[in-house]
Amino acid sequence: MHKVTSTSSLGPGGLDLTQSFFKPIQNTAPPSPTKRHTKISVIGVGNVGMAIAQTILTQDLADELALVDAVKDKLRGEMLDLQHAAAFLPRTQILSSTDYSVTAGSDLCIVTAGARQNPGESRLNLLQRNVGLFKKIIPPLAQLSPDAILLIVSNPVDVLTYVAWKLSGFPSNRVIGSGTNLDSSRFRFLIADHLDVNAQDVQAYIVGEHGDSSVALWSSISVGGVPILSFLEKQQISCEKETLERIHKEVVGSAYEVISLKGYTSWAIGYSVANLAFSILRNQRKIHPVTVMANGFHGIEAGEVFLSLPALLGRGGALAVTNVHMTEEEAQRLRDSAKTLLELQRQLDLEV
Amino acid sequence: MHKVTSTSSLGPGGLDLTQSFFKPIQNTAPPSPTKRHTKISVIGVGNVGMAIAQTILTQDLADELALVDAVKDKLRGEMLDLQHAAAFLPRTQILSSTDYSVTAGSDLCIVTAGARQNPGESRLNLLQRNVGLFKKIIPPLAQLSPDAILLIVSNPVDVLTYVAWKLSGFPSNRVIGSGTNLDSSRFRFLIADHLDVNAQDVQAYIVGEHGDSSVALWSSISVGGVPILSFLEKQQISCEKETLERIHKEVVGSAYEVISLKGYTSWAIGYSVANLAFSILRNQRKIHPVTVMANGFHGIEAGEVFLSLPALLGRGGALAVTNVHMTEEEAQRLRDSAKTLLELQRQLDLEV
Amino acid sequence: MHKVTSTSSLGPGGLDLTQSFFKPIQNTAPPSPTKRHTKISVIGVGNVGMAIAQTILTQDLADELALVDAVKDKLRGEMLDLQHAAAFLPRTQILSSTDYSVTAGSDLCIVTAGARQNPGESRLNLLQRNVGLFKKIIPPLAQLSPDAILLIVSNPVDVLTYVAWKLSGFPSNRVIGSGTNLDSSRFRFLIADHLDVNAQDVQAYIVGEHGDSSVALWSSISVGGVPILSFLEKQQISCEKETLERIHKEVVGSAYEVISLKGYTSWAIGYSVANLAFSILRNQRKIHPVTVMANGFHGIEAGEVFLSLPALLGRGGALAVTNVHMTEEEAQRLRDSAKTLLELQRQLDLEV
Amino acid sequence: MHKVTSTSSLGPGGLDLTQSFFKPIQNTAPPSPTKRHTKISVIGVGNVGMAIAQTILTQDLADELALVDAVKDKLRGEMLDLQHAAAFLPRTQILSSTDYSVTAGSDLCIVTAGARQNPGESRLNLLQRNVGLFKKIIPPLAQLSPDAILLIVSNPVDVLTYVAWKLSGFPSNRVIGSGTNLDSSRFRFLIADHLDVNAQDVQAYIVGEHGDSSVALWSSISVGGVPILSFLEKQQISCEKETLERIHKEVVGSAYEVISLKGYTSWAIGYSVANLAFSILRNQRKIHPVTVMANGFHGIEAGEVFLSLPALLGRGGALAVTNVHMTEEEAQRLRDSAKTLLELQRQLDLEV
Repeated sequence: MHKVTSTSSLGPGGLDLTQSFFKPIQNTAPPSPTKRHTKISVIGVGNVGMAIAQTILTQDLADELALVDAVKDKLRGEMLDLQHAAAFLPRTQILSSTDYSVTAGSDLCIVTAGARQNPGESRLNLLQRNVGLFKKIIPPLAQLSPDAILLIVSNPVDVLTYVAWKLSGFPSNRVIGSGTNLDSSRFRFLIADHLDVNAQDVQAYIVGEHGDSSVALWSSISVGGVPILSFLEKQQISCEKETLERIHKEVVGSAYEVISLKGYTSWAIGYSVANLAFSILRNQRKIHPVTVMANGFHGIEAGEVFLSLPALLGRGGALAVTNVHMTEEEAQRLRDSAKTLLELQRQLDLEV
Repeated sequence: MHKVTSTSSLGPGGLDLTQSFFKPIQNTAPPSPTKRHTKISVIGVGNVGMAIAQTILTQDLADELALVDAVKDKLRGEMLDLQHAAAFLPRTQILSSTDYSVTAGSDLCIVTAGARQNPGESRLNLLQRNVGLFKKIIPPLAQLSPDAILLIVSNPVDVLTYVAWKLSGFPSNRVIGSGTNLDSSRFRFLIADHLDVNAQDVQAYIVGEHGDSSVALWSSISVGGVPILSFLEKQQISCEKETLERIHKEVVGSAYEVISLKGYTSWAIGYSVANLAFSILRNQRKIHPVTVMANGFHGIEAGEVFLSLPALLGRGGALAVTNVHMTEEEAQRLRDSAKTLLELQRQLDLEV
Repeated sequence: MHKVTSTSSLGPGGLDLTQSFFKPIQNTAPPSPTKRHTKISVIGVGNVGMAIAQTILTQDLADELALVDAVKDKLRGEMLDLQHAAAFLPRTQILSSTDYSVTAGSDLCIVTAGARQNPGESRLNLLQRNVGLFKKIIPPLAQLSPDAILLIVSNPVDVLTYVAWKLSGFPSNRVIGSGTNLDSSRFRFLIADHLDVNAQDVQAYIVGEHGDSSVALWSSISVGGVPILSFLEKQQISCEKETLERIHKEVVGSAYEVISLKGYTSWAIGYSVANLAFSILRNQRKIHPVTVMANGFHGIEAGEVFLSLPALLGRGGALAVTNVHMTEEEAQRLRDSAKTLLELQRQLDLEV
Repeated sequence: MHKVTSTSSLGPGGLDLTQSFFKPIQNTAPPSPTKRHTKISVIGVGNVGMAIAQTILTQDLADELALVDAVKDKLRGEMLDLQHAAAFLPRTQILSSTDYSVTAGSDLCIVTAGARQNPGESRLNLLQRNVGLFKKIIPPLAQLSPDAILLIVSNPVDVLTYVAWKLSGFPSNRVIGSGTNLDSSRFRFLIADHLDVNAQDVQAYIVGEHGDSSVALWSSISVGGVPILSFLEKQQISCEKETLERIHKEVVGSAYEVISLKGYTSWAIGYSVANLAFSILRNQRKIHPVTVMANGFHGIEAGEVFLSLPALLGRGGALAVTNVHMTEEEAQRLRDSAKTLLELQRQLDLEV
């Protein structure tokens, strides 16, 4: 475990100062060091993993932050770079290791690791490679932190959340994917920008499969508590619906756009996942569109499938799904996504 | 327990909406609701107790905040007033009761309750009345939260911290008094104001007995890392030492001044105690001048006595005392305070 | 002006240390000290004014905070109590004076001063006394801070916001009353508590006159983006509407309840007004139900009258009013309030 | 200027909704939009520039953030990635352009742009190339924001701060380099880690030239107000001085270590510069070791040279330099650095 500790790096004289500088309080009973201490592990220190780790640190969400990656040098470099900022932040213990033992006792494990598509590689082949990766990641995480909540960020997030659920053996409320939480945030930003209001005043959900076939819930859009669709009807404004559809298209394209421009996405997903971490660990009981076990909702009955739905998040993970209104067309599109995902899942080998 | 709950206050129809609005996630294993959940109890909802409670709430230090007081109406009014602010704050559960059972499972219990001096009443008589009060407060707190840290704010804080230690049966590291933490803060503010710098750049301690006989540690004063006394010597500036002494007198008088002007102190003690709560609960390992078991430090050998010393605070309470430099005169004044307090303690009846 | 300054309070030697401790940077051009510096003034340091001032300080909204009150001792005591917390907070200059000159150059002036009802006194008589008070407060504020935004908290807030507008000569966008912002927050808290969700996920407005005749906009209630009324219709849940009405009654009664229990309200109004201050000063363009010039909205055509409506707040004050849907009954109740207020206003003598 | 605006990207129907959704407040006088509005520009959107921009955004330091870079695609990608996080953050306007006009009216301009060393290139040649870059960057920044403070982060930071001062024509208090602020933070972290205390309790300065020849001010190290050197002397602990020297070496090597491990440094410099931005823009009057005009301090008399010294930072920039104690040896090393830098400066061509 890479940790800058005084004794190891500073030689045998290291403890003299400490011992004389502080005098322990007498009769001190052994403390219970891990008690009510919040620990977050981030698996994968690429651009996404590090944007998440840094935002968690800035927002002071954890007492202990453990980083895991297979690339030893990069991992240690990222840990040191965060540690050097200690004087600017509340005290958080930052650890890193290529060994999963560093994650033991986590409250929340955030998985961002994932293989990149090789030229000419099929999507299924890529997925199977990521499944192979998850077989190495999920079982030790689940074993070392049996009460943790797993938050999957790796793509394709919906299938991989299902895979993590299967491999962990956790109850479904404790396996969540970042899903369309960020898509919904981008949707809100663009609507807010269009109306020149604060994005926090805009309520709008994108649900379903993260990516091209996501579903914008038109009737869920409200601004300052005013449902926009019925407002447009009352005001007989027709051209605006077109605008909203263009905004949805912009959202679907926006991750691609950022990737084509800067090579990857990082900041927005970092804030988005830190936001989920806060709702979960501080038991906020807030509603977020995230990937959850969708079987039984909105007529999805085909089997065990994970999709984004507006879910109530708290200390127990995904506590409930909001009974949000969908048109029959919207629900059908959800069910179609479920079917596609189930077929994909059937082709995966999840034997460890 | 006063809590605005839907079922009780809103009648039998209350749960219909909840049940249909949310659909629970299937296969949800029973959550472990109190796990890694931070609970703070504040005993006494007078001006000091409420300033502390409100600052704790604003700074988002607890998941659950329990208020206890003997005056039922005032207590419920303060709880409701805080609850009405829920929309402006991260979600914190706020409870109140005249019964100590509401404090069960606290991580930190902050005691602000105390009797006021009657006209003509001797200090000893007042103290004995407060001891009587603590006999009702401390045993149930200690029993209902056996792992908690007790933080005593009631005055005279040094003796009452000793009393709380005795009545709780807790190890001494888990019984702390607010002591001279605020005096030191006022000292820093006045030095900073004098030099026109940020008070956070000033290091300066007032230690010993909270109140008139507190001891300013002159050699501990540094500004931006520059020790002021040796700086003054090098620069041969003599009149400034007088200034610093005037500042210490101003500090000693400042609580009296605020009380004479507005009738009580509240805001500064609220921030000061919230600051201690943060260092303790978030395991900051920061150094604060607070009331701790002082026996064995700086030549204090006369017996079990609590006084303010610079102590390292973390999740285990008071972890250690800094081996700060004192002149022989300063140490003697500490020992004199210890002797006075021990004599006072001998006159107290602590049988429950 | 009460300010703890080194020279005045610490004698002629006061500057020696400063002059030798710091050496000025050479060639320093004169700084422009007030440039892009945020100043807030709070008029009245009673329980409401101080809860506002303390929350503004904790949330770090101002570079300079000026307090004004007629009671000199109380005022100085409150200022000192806040100043003593300097070591726990980002650096803010805190000033106080019985003279309005201390408010010069404010960006935001928050007026909380108001007379209390004498036994047997009529409401109109009380109002006329408060108008008398405002004649002393508003003209100097407006003259010393000609670009400020006035935020009126004193009650009856709707008429007094009109009075402040008249006495200031300011354009109506720069005169705002706290109105039903807090009522709406209480409404959201009770709905959230009923559904066991985060209050920040609840959108709900109470508009109109602050107090007994306020209007709850039922169709504006949404939870996590789901409009509750239409949800209830679709689910054919009838008894819940009754619940919501009971919640509205509880909101209307809640200020009275807190006052009857603790004697006054303070914390929730403190957070509520600090929240408005943030939206205004940091140009958040957020929607808040606050008292604004209502003439021309929702069929109110009777004259210059101020009522709470959902308004977009930013650096320019109240920038726009949301075109929120109201039933004819709701709009009629608004117009009735407008009429009552106009009659009241006609009886006031606003000659200075 | 890349900005996602409704009208341009969403077509002619774009404003219909806005116009009907909001109704403007009548009689609204024209607002003064830039008044007391804080604008920060970041030049260069590489790893350092973006870590700074993101930390500034998370810590809510600006109302407007402008990004400038020569690489158009990368620049737009970074802007969009930050904008997509709008729903998670207070409202900040984020702009970007390859044209400096986007920076007009900035309060603070942070320059992170810089050329990388080519294989076999001499340091002087690299520096001259960076001077060439600064000739394109500094004059338009200075012209478009004549009252701004320039904060230089590009390396070699000391010479380039001098270059920026010359090219801008600004008074020296308004041209600052990030200097040894981060080195000092790393120093504090390692001392704190060694003693197992909070890094915020450690005061310690590294001054002089950023990099290998930086000077650790041993006598400035204090922990919780206790000067460590004199403590060690009193306790007759000798081996610890060695430990501190090893820590200084570790600091000097730590930037190289992070670069060798992850390829660049980003997070710690991001927090460090955001921290400087806060002290400057919010007029904190805090002391930071940053690059300032050093002529006239500690016997440096050789000419106009910029080096890191503990400086008081506020709204006016670098307001003063702390008269910190140095041994003759420490001061001599400073003067040697000054001489080296002056010789380097003489070889530069600063004609625009």
